[in-house]
Amino acid sequence: MPGRPRSDRPRSDVADPGLAEAGNARIDWARRAMPVLGLIGERFAAEQPLRGLTVAACLHVTAETAVLIRTLRRGGARVLLAASNPLSTQDDTAAALGDGDGEHGDGEHGDPGDSGVTVFARAGVDRETYYAHIASALDAAPDLVIDDGGDLANTLHQERPDLLAKVRGGCESTSTGVIRLRRMAAAGALAFPVVAANDTRARRMADNTGQSVIDGILRATNTLLAGKTVVVAGFGACGQGIASRIRGLGGQVIVTEIDPVRGLDAVLQGFRVLPMLAAAALGEMFVTATGSRDVIAREHMAIMRDGAMLANAGHFDVEIDVRALDRLANAIHHDVRPHTDEYVLADGRRLLLLAEGRVVNLVAAEGHPAAVMDLSFGIQALALAWLATATEPLADRVYEVPESIDAEVARLKLASLGTQIDTLTPDQRDYLASWHQGS
Amino acid sequence: MPGRPRSDRPRSDVADPGLAEAGNARIDWARRAMPVLGLIGERFAAEQPLRGLTVAACLHVTAETAVLIRTLRRGGARVLLAASNPLSTQDDTAAALGDGDGEHGDGEHGDPGDSGVTVFARAGVDRETYYAHIASALDAAPDLVIDDGGDLANTLHQERPDLLAKVRGGCESTSTGVIRLRRMAAAGALAFPVVAANDTRARRMADNTGQSVIDGILRATNTLLAGKTVVVAGFGACGQGIASRIRGLGGQVIVTEIDPVRGLDAVLQGFRVLPMLAAAALGEMFVTATGSRDVIAREHMAIMRDGAMLANAGHFDVEIDVRALDRLANAIHHDVRPHTDEYVLADGRRLLLLAEGRVVNLVAAEGHPAAVMDLSFGIQALALAWLATATEPLADRVYEVPESIDAEVARLKLASLGTQIDTLTPDQRDYLASWHQGS
Amino acid sequence: MPGRPRSDRPRSDVADPGLAEAGNARIDWARRAMPVLGLIGERFAAEQPLRGLTVAACLHVTAETAVLIRTLRRGGARVLLAASNPLSTQDDTAAALGDGDGEHGDGEHGDPGDSGVTVFARAGVDRETYYAHIASALDAAPDLVIDDGGDLANTLHQERPDLLAKVRGGCESTSTGVIRLRRMAAAGALAFPVVAANDTRARRMADNTGQSVIDGILRATNTLLAGKTVVVAGFGACGQGIASRIRGLGGQVIVTEIDPVRGLDAVLQGFRVLPMLAAAALGEMFVTATGSRDVIAREHMAIMRDGAMLANAGHFDVEIDVRALDRLANAIHHDVRPHTDEYVLADGRRLLLLAEGRVVNLVAAEGHPAAVMDLSFGIQALALAWLATATEPLADRVYEVPESIDAEVARLKLASLGTQIDTLTPDQRDYLASWHQGS
Amino acid sequence: MPGRPRSDRPRSDVADPGLAEAGNARIDWARRAMPVLGLIGERFAAEQPLRGLTVAACLHVTAETAVLIRTLRRGGARVLLAASNPLSTQDDTAAALGDGDGEHGDGEHGDPGDSGVTVFARAGVDRETYYAHIASALDAAPDLVIDDGGDLANTLHQERPDLLAKVRGGCESTSTGVIRLRRMAAAGALAFPVVAANDTRARRMADNTGQSVIDGILRATNTLLAGKTVVVAGFGACGQGIASRIRGLGGQVIVTEIDPVRGLDAVLQGFRVLPMLAAAALGEMFVTATGSRDVIAREHMAIMRDGAMLANAGHFDVEIDVRALDRLANAIHHDVRPHTDEYVLADGRRLLLLAEGRVVNLVAAEGHPAAVMDLSFGIQALALAWLATATEPLADRVYEVPESIDAEVARLKLASLGTQIDTLTPDQRDYLASWHQGS
Repeated sequence: MPGRPRSDRPRSDVADPGLAEAGNARIDWARRAMPVLGLIGERFAAEQPLRGLTVAACLHVTAETAVLIRTLRRGGARVLLAASNPLSTQDDTAAALGDGDGEHGDGEHGDPGDSGVTVFARAGVDRETYYAHIASALDAAPDLVIDDGGDLANTLHQERPDLLAKVRGGCESTSTGVIRLRRMAAAGALAFPVVAANDTRARRMADNTGQSVIDGILRATNTLLAGKTVVVAGFGACGQGIASRIRGLGGQVIVTEIDPVRGLDAVLQGFRVLPMLAAAALGEMFVTATGSRDVIAREHMAIMRDGAMLANAGHFDVEIDVRALDRLANAIHHDVRPHTDEYVLADGRRLLLLAEGRVVNLVAAEGHPAAVMDLSFGIQALALAWLATATEPLADRVYEVPESIDAEVARLKLASLGTQIDTLTPDQRDYLASWHQGS
Repeated sequence: MPGRPRSDRPRSDVADPGLAEAGNARIDWARRAMPVLGLIGERFAAEQPLRGLTVAACLHVTAETAVLIRTLRRGGARVLLAASNPLSTQDDTAAALGDGDGEHGDGEHGDPGDSGVTVFARAGVDRETYYAHIASALDAAPDLVIDDGGDLANTLHQERPDLLAKVRGGCESTSTGVIRLRRMAAAGALAFPVVAANDTRARRMADNTGQSVIDGILRATNTLLAGKTVVVAGFGACGQGIASRIRGLGGQVIVTEIDPVRGLDAVLQGFRVLPMLAAAALGEMFVTATGSRDVIAREHMAIMRDGAMLANAGHFDVEIDVRALDRLANAIHHDVRPHTDEYVLADGRRLLLLAEGRVVNLVAAEGHPAAVMDLSFGIQALALAWLATATEPLADRVYEVPESIDAEVARLKLASLGTQIDTLTPDQRDYLASWHQGS
Repeated sequence: MPGRPRSDRPRSDVADPGLAEAGNARIDWARRAMPVLGLIGERFAAEQPLRGLTVAACLHVTAETAVLIRTLRRGGARVLLAASNPLSTQDDTAAALGDGDGEHGDGEHGDPGDSGVTVFARAGVDRETYYAHIASALDAAPDLVIDDGGDLANTLHQERPDLLAKVRGGCESTSTGVIRLRRMAAAGALAFPVVAANDTRARRMADNTGQSVIDGILRATNTLLAGKTVVVAGFGACGQGIASRIRGLGGQVIVTEIDPVRGLDAVLQGFRVLPMLAAAALGEMFVTATGSRDVIAREHMAIMRDGAMLANAGHFDVEIDVRALDRLANAIHHDVRPHTDEYVLADGRRLLLLAEGRVVNLVAAEGHPAAVMDLSFGIQALALAWLATATEPLADRVYEVPESIDAEVARLKLASLGTQIDTLTPDQRDYLASWHQGS
Repeated sequence: MPGRPRSDRPRSDVADPGLAEAGNARIDWARRAMPVLGLIGERFAAEQPLRGLTVAACLHVTAETAVLIRTLRRGGARVLLAASNPLSTQDDTAAALGDGDGEHGDGEHGDPGDSGVTVFARAGVDRETYYAHIASALDAAPDLVIDDGGDLANTLHQERPDLLAKVRGGCESTSTGVIRLRRMAAAGALAFPVVAANDTRARRMADNTGQSVIDGILRATNTLLAGKTVVVAGFGACGQGIASRIRGLGGQVIVTEIDPVRGLDAVLQGFRVLPMLAAAALGEMFVTATGSRDVIAREHMAIMRDGAMLANAGHFDVEIDVRALDRLANAIHHDVRPHTDEYVLADGRRLLLLAEGRVVNLVAAEGHPAAVMDLSFGIQALALAWLATATEPLADRVYEVPESIDAEVARLKLASLGTQIDTLTPDQRDYLASWHQGS
């Protein structure tokens, strides 16, 4: 792709040892709360399931990701990492990760030669550089890919079909990305097997924690949730977590949904369920977690209360129609609080947009706590090993995470907590296996 | 089967008009809380999906079941009902249901001629009569079967193979029963397609309500749950519901599990998770909801606190090892409270067994509220119609409930509550369908 | 008072040994859950604080009350017990309590001669007999009185002023009763000191458990609380308990209040707060716990949803305007469920009244669990001893329960649970006592 | 007091218009969430209850305090503000508040001449300067004082007895401070009436929100609370709030207490209650909220788990014995996360101390949200007006906040939320006032 900008030169700040040091401190802190990856890393070091393979990953460049990458490295992989969101990149983490053994090379951070990890990421880069970073990661001709939203897989299929043949498989960790991949598979356009790491029982639990969204909202606004009417759009694992945590902090939650089963679930859990058009007039705060677009649209903004706060917890920044808000506003005051912009409408009402409508837990706080990412990334590490060591050929479709991987991650987590559970006795095993015993 | 007792004579109490009247009042009360079946009944009346078919059902003979049976009747079916548990049979309901149009016939209750419903059930019958009732229901050579624990399907396969050819399919509503059927299918022994109605999203919600187990425990003991250490064995949908409701009433819950993912889920929801051997010494109350046997065994009873209460919420009465308790006891005082027996052990400790170890919500209370059964039975009614009207031949295996049925039941339920949800806009539909749009 | 009916003849059923036996079994069950009274009883037996004194009590005649009465008896008192509500009287308990040593005398139950306890109570008596029972209890010229709603103190002041001089003091355990007594004291009409046992920290906790109200509602209706819109009128200790327990069972709670501080408290705990006129149109169930009258009045009934359920958890049956409901109804169907009457209004809507508007936890269930009454009655037992052994004369006013009594009851309860708490170190004691140390 | 350092020179940064501008933006943000003070300010502007009076206040110099100070100013007061904690001072707020009309004078911030507000505060000053600031505020010879921990009242009594005669009264807002003042009053050492603004129903609700402590912990650690064993020391309003919020976020909470009533309350709310020595070995996180000292002492640290986190939510930094921790540590790594210091013990265990043991919600987050302070400060503003306009002389003792003030604050808050509550009808008023009506 001649003429396309490449960000393949070493970053000047790589030379900054303080940056890498700060990054390593961050990574070390994260590592303490990620015992599952630690235990997987020990196994990987012994078994080398990824030996000789090249992994291209498009992930948030955070300390937790760094722990995953180093775990893959222990399993024998060479890794190239591009950022899945320029706003969430931690430059110090990037410097530390790409500079594992004190050298740097031809990536944004680090030399694949010795550390085995190259990072293409810098905080706040523009759209062009963002895609250039992804392209650089792909240049290494990966055997395996890890994706977080689908941009890497998309780029691979659309712009680098030449590389597809070598790809053994990939992981995708967002619902949005998996929806895309299933469409591609259905259309016969998917060129390698993909594990949908977005929707396992353990992953739902992780998403369900909801804590980091609360954290982002509090850091951005310091507003009191107790007694506040909060509209949560979407009652999937993520939305449920947000709704129950806000209720746990004393908020009065209204849920909106498009799926009747989820809607009913919200009702039975004691939440008010309303269409967004009815909820819009009642909410003092709105949090979207749907995976869809324009969930909060012009018609909703038109009837919101003065001072209403709008936050998005979904992967992409399309859930709140920010352009509609721009058009409605007479004036915009940026950063009336950190990550909070005030839109003054023609009628004097003020709407407060958090994190520019981008994913609030990553932009205004620090994303999922490491203990949560430990579960998600544990699944991904094991799924990657599963793809790498498959003895039978896999089809070019979307696979669910094997149940054994989910159970293994949970088992490792419980072990790290010192929590013991029961095991079936032989009699119980027989009982459950039998269909002859009557009542 | 010569020599086998048959309970095919009319019950004398059918002549008791007061009994049928009381039963109809009960059924009427249940019907009010079952709007989903009401709406399905309207559709069935118009579409007649079960016209000309004979349905044999083995279910708890309660008012809620009666509403289901009448719904099937509106769809055109002739129905034969045997009890799935002799302790839960409501004689007045049986009298009313089998006597729909004021006549009675050759069943325990009612004449299939006009009312179209024959009931084989009487409260408290012995084991022999129990199976005789099932056999009588099967005598009608059903096209479709409904099961609740698997005794009917089991009897059909083991004792009436002559009838199997006519059976188009069946529904099973307990996890225990579905486990059995999957084993049968795996062994090539299943002779007709079965819908597993035990594990849909809507059904999990229903099980998850937990209320009736609490109700049974309170009626049996009137004990204060606030501040009480309660051990809940099993963290499936049912166990989760019980655990969260007991916590909602101020109890301090300890969870035991054999599945690491469920165990971790319990931890992340803030419950203590322990092996039963550790929990046994701490609990003031124990509630089992596992589907397995001997979950509370001799070794646990040996270390329990004086006054500990034992209740089972699972389908079969095998989860608490009652025989072990019998052997441990020096004396047994029956009914120190309704449905509560006191076992005095050799060392003076007293253990209190609720409902003889049988399913406590049905024995000591009234089972799931009608509003809950409305969901479960709504699924079963639609699943039966799906089996009856399948245009392509179905395999002799266990089918999951089609998602559309689950969604339809939830949709009807929300409609009956007057709860509206959102629908996707065309733009949103396009967005979710697309895999070309970048981030 | 010649001409007034007296119920001072022995009841025929006292001769029924089975009744007393059943009562003793009930009392024994309650006793197990009342360790605080057990520990107080041990102390009373040793210290005899009530030796030679006559106590007249007007309380619900239940097993828990029997445990209190026997505790007072151990402290040396002769006790005369009249029922505070004819609907809640347990005849078997009455028979057992008044018949402690196998004899019976001239009361409704029992001979004061040997057992030292005389009971004037029979389930379901009319208003006249109710007051006759109170009068009979007073005839013994009490030194101390225990009241539960104020009827005994009221009768004493209004009809038996001759007895007032002998009365050393009394206890009142309801908020309604205490309000009355404070008015009397303010008007100079109170003739002896009274301890307000209704509102201590330990008592609020007891009221706050809310469980028995839930229990009453479930037994009367078997309705599903999950997803139900429930209006709780009053957010005092009792109302808060009900609201939080209903929420704990998945209900969606709306609170009504007249006190802004309580109203705000409800808001900050995440409840919707509305005026009753707005809530009336939304609720599927209403529970009153205010101590006031006509909280649910004609104007509210006029706009309620079809099928709405009305329950009262307050002491007196004045909170729901049952007469207005009678007048609104075209037809009344009694006992469509146990303790549930259906009122069919002119426009076809049906309202369901639980327990005739009387206190639902006592009428439809069994009142507070024994473990709760253990706290309330522990306070009353100690308060009575405090009145009896006061070394300085007390004024004729309403006293709060001394903090030391509250703490002692809590201490005994924790001890019975095996729960240990910390004690201040000498340094901590000094620190808290000091006002010289800076920050 | 010659020789004593005085910080009575203008701060250089007052000249920084950007600082004041930033402070005004902060204050404006806070003001939006403080409608109660807004409504009180309107009344004060009209009624001028503080006209001509000088108020000396020792409070956290935050945006919320600024809104209070401006409210007092609208009531006619001249105000001198010293910081109650050098770590919590927001320099930009100080600059804006003391510089209200664009001038500055002889205080740390601002000229009392025109703006009427002088601020003595700078972030991070040493102990000497801290007391010098308080002394400077007192130099103005206040008519009224506002205190937050008691340092100002203490200094006034111990070092400036000459000023006591002029002081009409004061407010104290911490439990710790009120304990001190009651001791002083009991010892006859209190020289003016004080309103205890720490313990009203509305204030308890405010403390009970718990949110800012969670916020501080999350910002300092980004740790996952779900599944974490958290020990909360103290179950007063503040501790209860923390415990219930941590539970609301999925934590498993253990409570420690010295008061049996509070301990029992915790038990009945479903918390485990243990002595600290038992809890110390179990906790992964500890939060103190007791008002006492050395609640976490050497003996507890000696048995804590590796990685345990220690946070204090009490006013003073004495609850965790930091000196003991210093002595136990082989190495201390400061700021492994913001506001998190790691203490490496001799045996290799690492304990993590948050905010140096100082009040974590103020140091690591932003203190109570403005909506909470609106309640506390609303009470203080009205209490000050009550002291200023008292028509009868007040005694030199500690007064509780008049109930009418509490109710008024709640009423204003509900009004600002648009929440309506009910009012008593005349019949209800009569009913509650009467003591003649029987049951």
